[in-house]
Amino acid sequence: MGARLVVVGGDAGGMSAALQARRLDPGLEIVALERTRWTSYSACGIPYLAGGSVPDLDSLVARTPDALRAQRIDVRTGHEVLGVDLAARRVEVHDRAHGRSFALGFDLLLLATGARPRRPVIEGIDAPHVHGVQTLDDAAHLLDTTRRHRPASAVVIGGGYIGLEMAEAFLARGIPVTVLERSSEVMGSFDPDLGAEIAAVMRRLGIDVRTGVEVTSIGPASVTTSDGDVPAEVVVLGTGVVPNAELAAEAGLLTGPHGALTVDRRQRSSEDGVWAAGDCCQSVHRLTGQPVYEPLGTVANKMGRVAGINLGGGYASFPGVLGTAVTRVGWLELGRTGLRRVEAQAIGFEVVEETIHSTTAASYLPEAHATTVRMVAERRTGRVLGVQSHGGPGSAKRIDVAVVAVASSLTVEDLVGMDLSYAPPFSPVWDPIQTAARALLSKL
Amino acid sequence: MGARLVVVGGDAGGMSAALQARRLDPGLEIVALERTRWTSYSACGIPYLAGGSVPDLDSLVARTPDALRAQRIDVRTGHEVLGVDLAARRVEVHDRAHGRSFALGFDLLLLATGARPRRPVIEGIDAPHVHGVQTLDDAAHLLDTTRRHRPASAVVIGGGYIGLEMAEAFLARGIPVTVLERSSEVMGSFDPDLGAEIAAVMRRLGIDVRTGVEVTSIGPASVTTSDGDVPAEVVVLGTGVVPNAELAAEAGLLTGPHGALTVDRRQRSSEDGVWAAGDCCQSVHRLTGQPVYEPLGTVANKMGRVAGINLGGGYASFPGVLGTAVTRVGWLELGRTGLRRVEAQAIGFEVVEETIHSTTAASYLPEAHATTVRMVAERRTGRVLGVQSHGGPGSAKRIDVAVVAVASSLTVEDLVGMDLSYAPPFSPVWDPIQTAARALLSKL
Repeated sequence: MGARLVVVGGDAGGMSAALQARRLDPGLEIVALERTRWTSYSACGIPYLAGGSVPDLDSLVARTPDALRAQRIDVRTGHEVLGVDLAARRVEVHDRAHGRSFALGFDLLLLATGARPRRPVIEGIDAPHVHGVQTLDDAAHLLDTTRRHRPASAVVIGGGYIGLEMAEAFLARGIPVTVLERSSEVMGSFDPDLGAEIAAVMRRLGIDVRTGVEVTSIGPASVTTSDGDVPAEVVVLGTGVVPNAELAAEAGLLTGPHGALTVDRRQRSSEDGVWAAGDCCQSVHRLTGQPVYEPLGTVANKMGRVAGINLGGGYASFPGVLGTAVTRVGWLELGRTGLRRVEAQAIGFEVVEETIHSTTAASYLPEAHATTVRMVAERRTGRVLGVQSHGGPGSAKRIDVAVVAVASSLTVEDLVGMDLSYAPPFSPVWDPIQTAARALLSKL
Repeated sequence: MGARLVVVGGDAGGMSAALQARRLDPGLEIVALERTRWTSYSACGIPYLAGGSVPDLDSLVARTPDALRAQRIDVRTGHEVLGVDLAARRVEVHDRAHGRSFALGFDLLLLATGARPRRPVIEGIDAPHVHGVQTLDDAAHLLDTTRRHRPASAVVIGGGYIGLEMAEAFLARGIPVTVLERSSEVMGSFDPDLGAEIAAVMRRLGIDVRTGVEVTSIGPASVTTSDGDVPAEVVVLGTGVVPNAELAAEAGLLTGPHGALTVDRRQRSSEDGVWAAGDCCQSVHRLTGQPVYEPLGTVANKMGRVAGINLGGGYASFPGVLGTAVTRVGWLELGRTGLRRVEAQAIGFEVVEETIHSTTAASYLPEAHATTVRMVAERRTGRVLGVQSHGGPGSAKRIDVAVVAVASSLTVEDLVGMDLSYAPPFSPVWDPIQTAARALLSKL
């Protein structure tokens, strides 16, 4: 009998790992414990499900429990882990369907327990019409509310990625929606002036965006704020997430400044034989070397792959993240990677910054949309530190050029000389990213 | 009185250089001699003008002669250079409007004479209804023919980028069009199986694509081929271009294997004080170090910028090209960069190759299009050597990630760990480029 790997959590991080471990070590016994009845789903797709462009919950499932079982992964849905005993090498499991608990020993343990919405201490926040959008159970609950009760009004608390996406989803369902943001601008991961532009687009779409507003309590049909009452028959939490790391922390595993599990480059936790992947653990910023918390599906998948390869006896390392993110609202696309000026300066970089206006295609073509690129480089070396882009369709994904440039320590001069692709429907003769690099180069 | 820079050619390469030189050296006298009446235009836009999505010739002009004159560049249109005397440091100029010739001395000379369509030795190829699409004069001529004579049929000789773009332009004008390609597949810069897919899409659009066909003569209303006669009241040459380098070669400047001017990294020709930029000169392939000829607008602009900075007393170097190209036909987008398998093997690389099928967005969204990525890496090192991509909207520009990766000598493993942007409307959770890198990694 081979060793037993117990995976806690059946979503991206856990199942990516399980599949890699299975591929590399056919003799490994793999048991996956998942609290809900869903496995390997795209939580990032929930706003699109809520908005109606994804037909049903099942569409968001990449691999069903049965598909995973066919890979000899013993998936047990409806099984919640209540405790981890590191000394005894076992987890305490609760089988919800049968109302029984049991202990399950492990040789290797992978924690992929994900995250849950941050719930500020507000009266009414635990009411049934206040929804997270992290799990498919959340999604099912939300869909049920939206379809059955046909709410006349919605509020999203928080003007970040989830706030934007969910506001558009309610709009698509014809439900008037208000976004309440505590800070002075929405989308705090972008510079404030971009936040203001984003809010302006949201308002043009018909979203009631209120910034600098505190929510004081949540009632059954309205939310009370520092700016008065806002009608809200349904409320979505877009206030960020917190890692589900308490179980592991109680067992003695180290966590970092964000409360997420500390892992090394191979996704090994502070305890031998115990690994972690996905939204429950922190990662490292490639540029700063500092611990960051990036609870994103794409990061979870990458971490899971690395953990699984190592668990299966192979070797892989996770290089960290650059804070890359893209989203859209209406026609406006947004992308960012690396450090903004304030972020770079905060850790001591002396920087130059430039913002340029260009088009997504040759300006003489009807498909050309306005696009803006803001780039930050280290003054002395010209090294690209970060880019923000926003504009019409075709603006966001361009950020990937900057991702590779930042990760490769390229300078703005390297970018200027880069043989990026060009044809009139796809780009001006100088790609907007290069136009930004040229502008910076002339400042250096 | 400062030194005099004479620029021969008023398009991308020449005018980019002139503007940079002016910026850096306000005392430089700059005379630009342009044969036609146009300056700084996008020849790449001509197919879109021909197809009607660009309203007029002037839309393709980035900077008019007057705009350049406002920058103190003495632009003389309708002026053709007939000879270069390197020893005497002067050019022989013909002023077309006044029918006179004169000698013009220079301290510095920049040759930016561009390229012209390759004209195979075929009876009738010089007839007035046989068009190149390299200059705005060509474009004016073609537009005039198309609009005034309303041709009932068109032929494009050559199934490369121009062939695809011009075939679609005729289609947009409601003119039945045939593309005649000598090789067994269209788009020879892609692998043959991709060429076959491209041809299939073209045929579905209604373009008559014939491969393995030789043109034997061109008559006033038809083209005679090895496959019989094809109606053609208008003919476009898509058979590639040849550099306008004869003048320089006669003067004693060195040319390379493609007949284009040899330049160093700073765009200096083989003669002191004489520089070159754009379609008249060759460049270096960044991966192979070999001379290549890449007559593309984006390359011309980059070379011009480098030449101009150096001419103005600054320092810049051109790093070479990777053979990057993108285009589209109907819904199909195509991109390529670096080396294909056959190209890599031809210069001695031992390679692995993989082709993957993915989607441009999360597969559960209606905006997800099928996309295919073929990646080649060096077997021993895992270094990415080249990528071809094709598929629905969103497929082509992804190639830029590969451009930066290849230029930075990244490995497939580097790409797998890259923090590329992800949100469901923009990408699957693993970007298709990363899915290809993963597939290759598992083969290494």
